[in-house]
Amino acid sequence: MKKALSFVYLLLLFVSPGFAQKQATWIWYPGDFEIWLGNNMQNRRTERGTFLPPFWKLDSHYNLIDFHKDFDLTQAEEVDLFVEGKYNVKIDGKAFSGFPKRITVPAGKHKVSLKVFCQDRVPAIFVQGKNVVSDATWLVTFEDKEWIDETGKASDQSGTTWLKAGSWNFNDSQTPPSKFKLNTKELSAVKVDKKAGSLLLDFGKETFGFIKLRGLSGEGNVNIYYGESREEALATATCETTDFLQIDKTQKRDSTMELTKAFRYVNVQYDGSVSMDSVSMLYEFLPVADRGGFRCSDEQINKIYDVAVYTLHLNTREFFIDGIKRDRWIWSGDAAQSYLMNYYLLFDSPSVTRTMLALRGKEPVTSHINTIMDYTLYWFISIYDYYQYTGDKAFIQQFYPRMQSLMDYCLARRNKNGLLEGLAGDWVFIDWADGLSKKGEVSFEQLLFARSLETMALCANIVNDAPNATKYNQLATDVKGKLFSSYWNESKHALVHSRVDGVPTENVTRYANMFAIFFNYLDEEKKQAVKQHVLLNPDVPKITTPYMRFYELEALCALGEQSYVTKEIKDYWGGMLNLGATSFWEEYNPAKKGAEHYAMYGRDFGKSLCHAWGASPIYLLGKYYLGVKPTTPAYATYLIEPQLGGLEWIDGKVPTPDGDVSVYCSTKEIKITGAAGTGTLRFKSKTKPVCKQAEVRSVNAGLYEVTVEKGKSYVVNYRP
Amino acid sequence: MKKALSFVYLLLLFVSPGFAQKQATWIWYPGDFEIWLGNNMQNRRTERGTFLPPFWKLDSHYNLIDFHKDFDLTQAEEVDLFVEGKYNVKIDGKAFSGFPKRITVPAGKHKVSLKVFCQDRVPAIFVQGKNVVSDATWLVTFEDKEWIDETGKASDQSGTTWLKAGSWNFNDSQTPPSKFKLNTKELSAVKVDKKAGSLLLDFGKETFGFIKLRGLSGEGNVNIYYGESREEALATATCETTDFLQIDKTQKRDSTMELTKAFRYVNVQYDGSVSMDSVSMLYEFLPVADRGGFRCSDEQINKIYDVAVYTLHLNTREFFIDGIKRDRWIWSGDAAQSYLMNYYLLFDSPSVTRTMLALRGKEPVTSHINTIMDYTLYWFISIYDYYQYTGDKAFIQQFYPRMQSLMDYCLARRNKNGLLEGLAGDWVFIDWADGLSKKGEVSFEQLLFARSLETMALCANIVNDAPNATKYNQLATDVKGKLFSSYWNESKHALVHSRVDGVPTENVTRYANMFAIFFNYLDEEKKQAVKQHVLLNPDVPKITTPYMRFYELEALCALGEQSYVTKEIKDYWGGMLNLGATSFWEEYNPAKKGAEHYAMYGRDFGKSLCHAWGASPIYLLGKYYLGVKPTTPAYATYLIEPQLGGLEWIDGKVPTPDGDVSVYCSTKEIKITGAAGTGTLRFKSKTKPVCKQAEVRSVNAGLYEVTVEKGKSYVVNYRP
Repeated sequence: MKKALSFVYLLLLFVSPGFAQKQATWIWYPGDFEIWLGNNMQNRRTERGTFLPPFWKLDSHYNLIDFHKDFDLTQAEEVDLFVEGKYNVKIDGKAFSGFPKRITVPAGKHKVSLKVFCQDRVPAIFVQGKNVVSDATWLVTFEDKEWIDETGKASDQSGTTWLKAGSWNFNDSQTPPSKFKLNTKELSAVKVDKKAGSLLLDFGKETFGFIKLRGLSGEGNVNIYYGESREEALATATCETTDFLQIDKTQKRDSTMELTKAFRYVNVQYDGSVSMDSVSMLYEFLPVADRGGFRCSDEQINKIYDVAVYTLHLNTREFFIDGIKRDRWIWSGDAAQSYLMNYYLLFDSPSVTRTMLALRGKEPVTSHINTIMDYTLYWFISIYDYYQYTGDKAFIQQFYPRMQSLMDYCLARRNKNGLLEGLAGDWVFIDWADGLSKKGEVSFEQLLFARSLETMALCANIVNDAPNATKYNQLATDVKGKLFSSYWNESKHALVHSRVDGVPTENVTRYANMFAIFFNYLDEEKKQAVKQHVLLNPDVPKITTPYMRFYELEALCALGEQSYVTKEIKDYWGGMLNLGATSFWEEYNPAKKGAEHYAMYGRDFGKSLCHAWGASPIYLLGKYYLGVKPTTPAYATYLIEPQLGGLEWIDGKVPTPDGDVSVYCSTKEIKITGAAGTGTLRFKSKTKPVCKQAEVRSVNAGLYEVTVEKGKSYVVNYRP
Repeated sequence: MKKALSFVYLLLLFVSPGFAQKQATWIWYPGDFEIWLGNNMQNRRTERGTFLPPFWKLDSHYNLIDFHKDFDLTQAEEVDLFVEGKYNVKIDGKAFSGFPKRITVPAGKHKVSLKVFCQDRVPAIFVQGKNVVSDATWLVTFEDKEWIDETGKASDQSGTTWLKAGSWNFNDSQTPPSKFKLNTKELSAVKVDKKAGSLLLDFGKETFGFIKLRGLSGEGNVNIYYGESREEALATATCETTDFLQIDKTQKRDSTMELTKAFRYVNVQYDGSVSMDSVSMLYEFLPVADRGGFRCSDEQINKIYDVAVYTLHLNTREFFIDGIKRDRWIWSGDAAQSYLMNYYLLFDSPSVTRTMLALRGKEPVTSHINTIMDYTLYWFISIYDYYQYTGDKAFIQQFYPRMQSLMDYCLARRNKNGLLEGLAGDWVFIDWADGLSKKGEVSFEQLLFARSLETMALCANIVNDAPNATKYNQLATDVKGKLFSSYWNESKHALVHSRVDGVPTENVTRYANMFAIFFNYLDEEKKQAVKQHVLLNPDVPKITTPYMRFYELEALCALGEQSYVTKEIKDYWGGMLNLGATSFWEEYNPAKKGAEHYAMYGRDFGKSLCHAWGASPIYLLGKYYLGVKPTTPAYATYLIEPQLGGLEWIDGKVPTPDGDVSVYCSTKEIKITGAAGTGTLRFKSKTKPVCKQAEVRSVNAGLYEVTVEKGKSYVVNYRP
């Protein structure tokens, strides 16, 4: 009873307006926690016990930060301070002595400021008063230029740049940013094959976390071999990840591995007097809920969708990473796809911005992002997408200077033709594909470059930088112009792959052609030409990575070829499922056999069997089957164009910044519920459709539209 | 006996060629330890217990570094590894598992590489084999661009920039860079005034270190008030530095303060049951020996010299700092003078480069060094001086890109006239002087700018960057041209102070005029004009800081006015001694009285009584009385022009990169011993001088020269 009373009392205390406290949150210099966390995560990669860090420059957080905010209080208040680092605190520029944990801010207008130095962690503060609370409205700088002259007069700080503080969801004073950890949940293997001195565990599907040896004791060695496949776990000499332990425990104790691993199978071998009661795992995950969903009449597609969702979740961690077994790094091209899938499943913007900030790092730019030219360009394009889906202007306002300096880097690397060509240290990646030429001016890179410049123009307009908006637009027009004047081959009906020494090659690849379609860079005639002569042409080299399959199928969807795409999805992703995949792979070549599928990079088990870019059906099914996409930023207006793609019915949800759009579509009926903003349902019908909830407009022969309002449901009877 | 034997054995072990090990040293990315240490030192400032960090951007070390070197071994060897950070180690690109502490490098040609991640400290390695040892010949990078393609083939790394590793004198595997500490020595007060609950200690002279409470016990408070003056230590409410402790010790224990302080007097007050046996200090110092020296017939000058030497030592610490009480930061303008004094006393190049690297920090440049325009320019000029005195081309080769980017920053801040004018956030300092205008285009800044551009041209030539050498030379010529066309006032016979809105002011100050003399920017006629109308003109505002006195007296010396300067030194520095100074001050105005001398910045004890810039007599007496100065880099050729300046005799030594130059000069005799390189003794004599050791050449009427060779001594009889 006493407890219940206390609870009520506490409840009153918090809801009573007199006591109501605003919610404080840990804050830092924007982008800095992201960089720090990225360093930590990316430096956890090991390969058979060898530390394997990234090969590009890692940046650091600013180690000395000034935080401040102006308050106007009706009465004085006590304020608690929690700080990561060595600090001082001032009210109206007057410092307190020492490192106070509580201060009183007097009534009236006052500036509260803290200055924090921290080298190993990100300088961060958590300020909790009633009204004086730390949040994203505080201003921060890494150089306050607060000098005084010989009389003690302070400088005017007019040269200081203040940004809004960065934050996430660290709302507990006792859990500072440096203590951030993903969640864990203990799971057991579904099957254990126990022999003398060994255990082979099968966790039933691809998974990720810490192996836990329960009730471990004795003296001897424990060697753990991890496998995404059974073959890998048994291949003790060539499996990619391992843990080697020396045990000397007289008392039984649980022992959890220090580092996470990716696996389905775990081969635990031990000797000496070592014994253990059992082996389990702590599954590690970012707690983020699915908002989108998809079901249809085809059970294989449903299974593909579910495995894609699981694949994306496994790769959605501190950041959107490439794959859980091997790199566990942040790769811009991989992440660009995760962002897009995210918009159709999680709609978790912090995961997008965290990833983009970690990728961008700090000045100076000394190489392309991840050293890859295309990956720098994807970074820009991802901002274009991010703004379209979320309408987050604040992000662009805070980080426009970092966009500019990265674009300056690109502009400085143009060749005499104004095009991008790999210079020393530039990795021109495009795709993992045997014999793919990276020489000269690759058309694909120019295409991404043009879109990046368009992104810069968009952002320049958002921050009211009109001269640069004009500049970027002109540059984009110029590069787009060159794309067609230099690479379009009339007899091949396609953009050719590259120009070497000023001469266009005869080589046609899919890359530039498919992007040109969904970037809408081609007129209708060229679109159809590309469709026939490239996309549906078996003589053009096939794509074998889910990475580029993503864009290839997107291009086909954008051309209305959903029925073809349905078959491709079933063949390709279904093909992996048929081989027992429980998550989707880095690369899949149906021509390979058995354990050949696991090899890559010249290593038997080099391939990642859980790669984010394998999850693209989430995006394709959401955007091109349910057919929901914003037409203005943040879904202020949006389109719903359901496409069955040969399926009998589809049913799902697409998240938006404010509410979900529900779509059901069969060959007879379309049912829609709208989110905030104004939706337009667009569909074809051979007969005049009927909708009781709204007017059906005829756009042109056989094409109809219905306006979809927030929260309202519509049923349309039609005949596709 | 056993011990002695072991010692002999060890000695044999080390001298025997079969066992001879090369000396290993800790290495890091060049400049990074300096930045890290600078952050640590500069974030130790407190003001009455309040943490007081710098107000400019602090940079960080690169946290992920690749170290490598190619070796060719006649036989395999065992190599021990000591690493600060998480690391891997490879031979010929093949990694060892885990974090090995010892590896075997096989015979033959092999590349040994380590890759280290460390966020809180500087990634550093100490590699100790017989031949495989870490030293400054290893190569390092912060981005190795070591990607592989889908077949496992590695990239060519052609875009990677490798620098030579940084190092200092950390030759002990057990003392990594992060553990670096200055030396300490326990000292007692010379006088203790003990009362109930208080002790007033006098350490006899200005000093620096940790206060140690010996045999402390009891319960209560201990408040420690530090004073550079007795007045300050007694002014418990306004003294600048304090320690406030709460004691609860049942057992007697020594307690040493956590932070160093500057003081002569220490006022220890305690209450409750607190008691202590005594109070001592741990004097903290950089162990660096005097190589230069000066004595003369005037005991006051000798005393001034000694106090200057002590002042410089106190301020020569992790870096050359401004003053030991207050900022304890690295200020480029202050350090520029310390470097020059260093060349005449310590000749400790690591202290110069450490300081220059910490000041320069990293890309991107977001403000002037220390936020001060003149301080950026001094940084360049200091490189000019450093190269002249030491001939250290390697430093310039490693850091030329950082010079370029800092100069780019300056060039981007020129106004439409191509001149430097304070923009938002630029502190135009010049000097602490009441009412000194910083508006518009200040002539002094243009003068430093011209010299900085000359420095860049010099360095561009050293790194064989001919196009930029030409560019910098042209820019220097342009700025110098404008200096005379815009600021030279014929009727005032001087450069005027500034131009505001394109119009030269009528205001004449000493700054630009005195620098123009020793930069040798004036022809003979202008020099004499400046001497009469500015330097010796009491109507031109007087200089009150030793900082600018340094340059004022240098200009007078350069004009041959040593006799005048001798009087000035005796008056000004003698004036401080007469007031009881035991080290030289930040500012000295003879017009002030008593404790007025201690006030500055609107605070009673704001002034630093031990400021590096107060030690300039070291430089003046070495360069312009002993008269030794390099004429080509590293003293390959040098001049000895002894000047008595009204003294009966002078006697001293000037260090060079290879040996010291000894100079004795009286009104009858000059005695010289040469260092490496070719010296030229130049002196005036009314009669034909006699030298038994070398030919005396007559240069022109009354001016003679003798060539001074390495290690040789010369006696010249003459009549000045």
